[in-house]
Amino acid sequence: MKAAIFLGSQSDKVTMKKAADVLRELDIEFSSRVVSAHRSPELLETTIAEIEQDGTEVIIAGAGLAAHLPGVIASKTLLPVIGVPIASGALNGIDALFSIVQMPKSVPVATVGVDNAANAAYLAAEILGVKYPELKKKLENLRTKMKEDLAKNSVTDL
Amino acid sequence: MKAAIFLGSQSDKVTMKKAADVLRELDIEFSSRVVSAHRSPELLETTIAEIEQDGTEVIIAGAGLAAHLPGVIASKTLLPVIGVPIASGALNGIDALFSIVQMPKSVPVATVGVDNAANAAYLAAEILGVKYPELKKKLENLRTKMKEDLAKNSVTDL
Amino acid sequence: MKAAIFLGSQSDKVTMKKAADVLRELDIEFSSRVVSAHRSPELLETTIAEIEQDGTEVIIAGAGLAAHLPGVIASKTLLPVIGVPIASGALNGIDALFSIVQMPKSVPVATVGVDNAANAAYLAAEILGVKYPELKKKLENLRTKMKEDLAKNSVTDL
Amino acid sequence: MKAAIFLGSQSDKVTMKKAADVLRELDIEFSSRVVSAHRSPELLETTIAEIEQDGTEVIIAGAGLAAHLPGVIASKTLLPVIGVPIASGALNGIDALFSIVQMPKSVPVATVGVDNAANAAYLAAEILGVKYPELKKKLENLRTKMKEDLAKNSVTDL
Amino acid sequence: MKAAIFLGSQSDKVTMKKAADVLRELDIEFSSRVVSAHRSPELLETTIAEIEQDGTEVIIAGAGLAAHLPGVIASKTLLPVIGVPIASGALNGIDALFSIVQMPKSVPVATVGVDNAANAAYLAAEILGVKYPELKKKLENLRTKMKEDLAKNSVTDL
Amino acid sequence: MKAAIFLGSQSDKVTMKKAADVLRELDIEFSSRVVSAHRSPELLETTIAEIEQDGTEVIIAGAGLAAHLPGVIASKTLLPVIGVPIASGALNGIDALFSIVQMPKSVPVATVGVDNAANAAYLAAEILGVKYPELKKKLENLRTKMKEDLAKNSVTDL
Amino acid sequence: MKAAIFLGSQSDKVTMKKAADVLRELDIEFSSRVVSAHRSPELLETTIAEIEQDGTEVIIAGAGLAAHLPGVIASKTLLPVIGVPIASGALNGIDALFSIVQMPKSVPVATVGVDNAANAAYLAAEILGVKYPELKKKLENLRTKMKEDLAKNSVTDL
Amino acid sequence: MKAAIFLGSQSDKVTMKKAADVLRELDIEFSSRVVSAHRSPELLETTIAEIEQDGTEVIIAGAGLAAHLPGVIASKTLLPVIGVPIASGALNGIDALFSIVQMPKSVPVATVGVDNAANAAYLAAEILGVKYPELKKKLENLRTKMKEDLAKNSVTDL
Repeated sequence: MKAAIFLGSQSDKVTMKKAADVLRELDIEFSSRVVSAHRSPELLETTIAEIEQDGTEVIIAGAGLAAHLPGVIASKTLLPVIGVPIASGALNGIDALFSIVQMPKSVPVATVGVDNAANAAYLAAEILGVKYPELKKKLENLRTKMKEDLAKNSVTDL
Repeated sequence: MKAAIFLGSQSDKVTMKKAADVLRELDIEFSSRVVSAHRSPELLETTIAEIEQDGTEVIIAGAGLAAHLPGVIASKTLLPVIGVPIASGALNGIDALFSIVQMPKSVPVATVGVDNAANAAYLAAEILGVKYPELKKKLENLRTKMKEDLAKNSVTDL
Repeated sequence: MKAAIFLGSQSDKVTMKKAADVLRELDIEFSSRVVSAHRSPELLETTIAEIEQDGTEVIIAGAGLAAHLPGVIASKTLLPVIGVPIASGALNGIDALFSIVQMPKSVPVATVGVDNAANAAYLAAEILGVKYPELKKKLENLRTKMKEDLAKNSVTDL
Repeated sequence: MKAAIFLGSQSDKVTMKKAADVLRELDIEFSSRVVSAHRSPELLETTIAEIEQDGTEVIIAGAGLAAHLPGVIASKTLLPVIGVPIASGALNGIDALFSIVQMPKSVPVATVGVDNAANAAYLAAEILGVKYPELKKKLENLRTKMKEDLAKNSVTDL
Repeated sequence: MKAAIFLGSQSDKVTMKKAADVLRELDIEFSSRVVSAHRSPELLETTIAEIEQDGTEVIIAGAGLAAHLPGVIASKTLLPVIGVPIASGALNGIDALFSIVQMPKSVPVATVGVDNAANAAYLAAEILGVKYPELKKKLENLRTKMKEDLAKNSVTDL
Repeated sequence: MKAAIFLGSQSDKVTMKKAADVLRELDIEFSSRVVSAHRSPELLETTIAEIEQDGTEVIIAGAGLAAHLPGVIASKTLLPVIGVPIASGALNGIDALFSIVQMPKSVPVATVGVDNAANAAYLAAEILGVKYPELKKKLENLRTKMKEDLAKNSVTDL
Repeated sequence: MKAAIFLGSQSDKVTMKKAADVLRELDIEFSSRVVSAHRSPELLETTIAEIEQDGTEVIIAGAGLAAHLPGVIASKTLLPVIGVPIASGALNGIDALFSIVQMPKSVPVATVGVDNAANAAYLAAEILGVKYPELKKKLENLRTKMKEDLAKNSVTDL
Repeated sequence: MKAAIFLGSQSDKVTMKKAADVLRELDIEFSSRVVSAHRSPELLETTIAEIEQDGTEVIIAGAGLAAHLPGVIASKTLLPVIGVPIASGALNGIDALFSIVQMPKSVPVATVGVDNAANAAYLAAEILGVKYPELKKKLENLRTKMKEDLAKNSVTDL
């Protein structure tokens, strides 16, 4: 059970660390690399070939601006690719959201909310949970615990 | 290996049929139901309980406007939920896209492009492909064939 | 004469306190709770059942991002539900606005401006004022006083 | 138990008729007038004075473009005002939505979805239902019936 | 030769002072008042009646959010009304821009850029310049001087 | 008393004819020309020089897409320039609106609503009305008549 | 002197033909191919290698939706790449515009207007004109002729 | 081999310096000037005439707001013009992007990303590289080096 995290640039690390934290919390092994779709396309290809071999079963890719990274990865593998639009620059993530979600027929990217790298990891876990019942169980426990915590703190003063 | 397709309303059938067509092409069994998150919440709950029992492993949900359906389903199951924003009404799908993709932490929806129900099915197949190697093989064959077709028709007059 | 305030998350407290302040100024009794549509759906259901019993006559619900909370509440009660889109994250409230206002036919949410929780409370008061003439009178006095204040400070140097 | 429907222009009749149809279905008496906030401000004032006298308890106002009508009405009465943004012209209703929903503090307009005049009527009914239990009962019956209809037609072929 | 500046709220003073500064630079007499279209409609009416009498020939009105002020003024006078959309709140002025510029047929507002109160004053001066040749001359001198200043500082290091 | 209408391209004639119709109704003399800011800049300059001589006192300019025409005219004259954003192409007029309204300090364009050429003519009339009392009188009569017509058709069936 | 036109899909032919027509009018030799960045990435790579050899000096690439094609080409060549955002699907070209123009540092795409394939060809000609004076001369003649045509048809009735 | 950089205002210097830095790194000679399309149109004309004479072969122009500068330059020369939309003011660069990219047929501007002046310089270099093989070689070396750097720093901790 293994995931891979791709970052479009070094500046995406703060945001994408939230995905790593969730994966760690769920005991999902993962690799992480900064690989640009445009500035290092050959490296990207090599890396995808590698992770296809090393047992990776789901991919998380975060990128900002034109944000082609998740889509380009999806064009080179049939592992599920989860895309995280990152808000950077003046258009504040709406550019990345459109670039990631509007993929052409047959090359989907599973898109999550802008900057919501944690959700990319939760989605990765749900996808792996289809195959690994013990991970699904872990997610269920987490959700139950979260609900209990929310219930305890529900009544609030304003 | 089984999927479920949820539609927010009868008027979403034309769009969501494209998901069904791809699932059929890939020999993935599926059920399909029209269930409104807002107008039939109890029915939705019953239905999710049912499909949790009947072996469904991935869910596709299409909805327009406020488009809460995929998110509400995701709040009631830990199966991966794929959301299809449907363009209907004056805001033309941007409302549905935002409502589906911007889910809170820990309750992700795997969002695909506006009206792109076919991609929801391809994504469902990739997710199931993590568990079922023969399905992944089928996707690879399809992609290879598609590439050959594209290559044959690449040179074009303008 | 009683209102209920729902918050989608603890981080919405600063914004939603403005609704509480107006309700207090108008002597409208209210309860307030943090209840997530997605992360604690069962708690939400229990809570709505409770307030249907405790005499609550109007509901104010604030949420950010996909902001399904007001709509999900509206699907489970026939009390008027007032939705407050909260600006949080990169899309800055436009996501919440679309998710709250574009509800399907027969399940309306009375939407107010982004972050404008005070207006949700004024609207709640106008709604209660249909039944309670003394509250309507209070609103009229408030408006008269506000007009007098504005008139006093109208002429200004620039 | 009485409502009033205001239209910003004759061209809004097709859209706003959907509000009238729902009010009729719920046996809510209503008046309807075309009154422009900008082109007939005095008439608007007279009309509001009239309906304040004739027992009207809730107002529905639909308008397109700059769509000031609902807000201007709200500035002249303390009855709840429900605004319907109407899609007309090149900006397709987003102009009307912003103009109606972003009202200043203390003068709220209860905004519903673009072109969703039916929901304005359902919201009016919920508001009147706070005072008139028999109307709330009618809404409950309608919702129950709608759920039964949805349940019957839920399973669908794609 | 006289102008009037209207502000929708006290918080618009910083932005609208830029209009006042330009008017002063051009020796155009002006009055300035904070008058809300929604919170003090009667005061607005009285004030417009006053300035119709006191020789005012052009009106500048700045407002944020739903920003009905310029349009409501335009509905009550046939003096040219210049609208300044002010960026305030989460939607950052796009709401005010749409609310001001998309006026219905026969009740125009001359809209300038978001927060660009200086341009409202320059436009007011051009409008008055149609009647007062000495003011047009002053504008020409200003423009000539501005061009000379720009020419002097054109070559620049980067 | 004379106006000039500029069109960015032959395809803008249908929209801009609405300005001409209003000017004719108000007996305002006008000239009209198709002159592209980008494709015929020298012609534009000659034409502006001409109308500065022929007694033109206000300019209306309509353009779509990047829509530089009104701004470029405003940079070459100190007559008031009224800009009409025309919806053409995929972005549907929002491009033209931004390009026309967001002018830099000291070179304003009086912008009206997208495709609302009639309002450009009404605004031109209001501007000329500052100088010509008989035109202002004509506008007042028109507005009075319009109000009477609206009043007659106000009560409506839905 | 040679250009290459890339289309993201067969459905882009109608739009991209406008580029071909301009190139033909300017006697610029060109090849044209349909090659998907995502569905045929290997073919794309081969094709780029080919045109790097066959004397192509500038590339025009049109694509809709996520529209990665121009950017992916730009990542694999140092020939200037001109991107044409094509309006297709519900978001109407704004998705393609953002995906094409917001490229990361050092991998630019020269973006033209939505659906404006003709301008891509004119830009290609200007780029080639830097090297080939006879082509620049041709462009100058064309522009002169266009100006003469515009001048002849400038005065117009409305 | 020479480029020219135009800035719409002194406040654009911080952004546009990034273009200058890249040009210097690539040993491309350049001139730089602040010239407003609207506030100094005659100076702009003179300057374009000068650079047409001094051997300039490509132009970079950055501007914010209505951002007509790149388009107006393009209307007066047949050298390739690269436009940089600069984020300034409340609309945050989307106004400048639309104003620059949506140019009419036959007068293209090669638009790069919002605030991405560095990419304007890289694009200028690619355009010059069509004529100057040694510059293209330099770009290839730079890209190779960049790829090596990216490869070295690819594996990362999260």
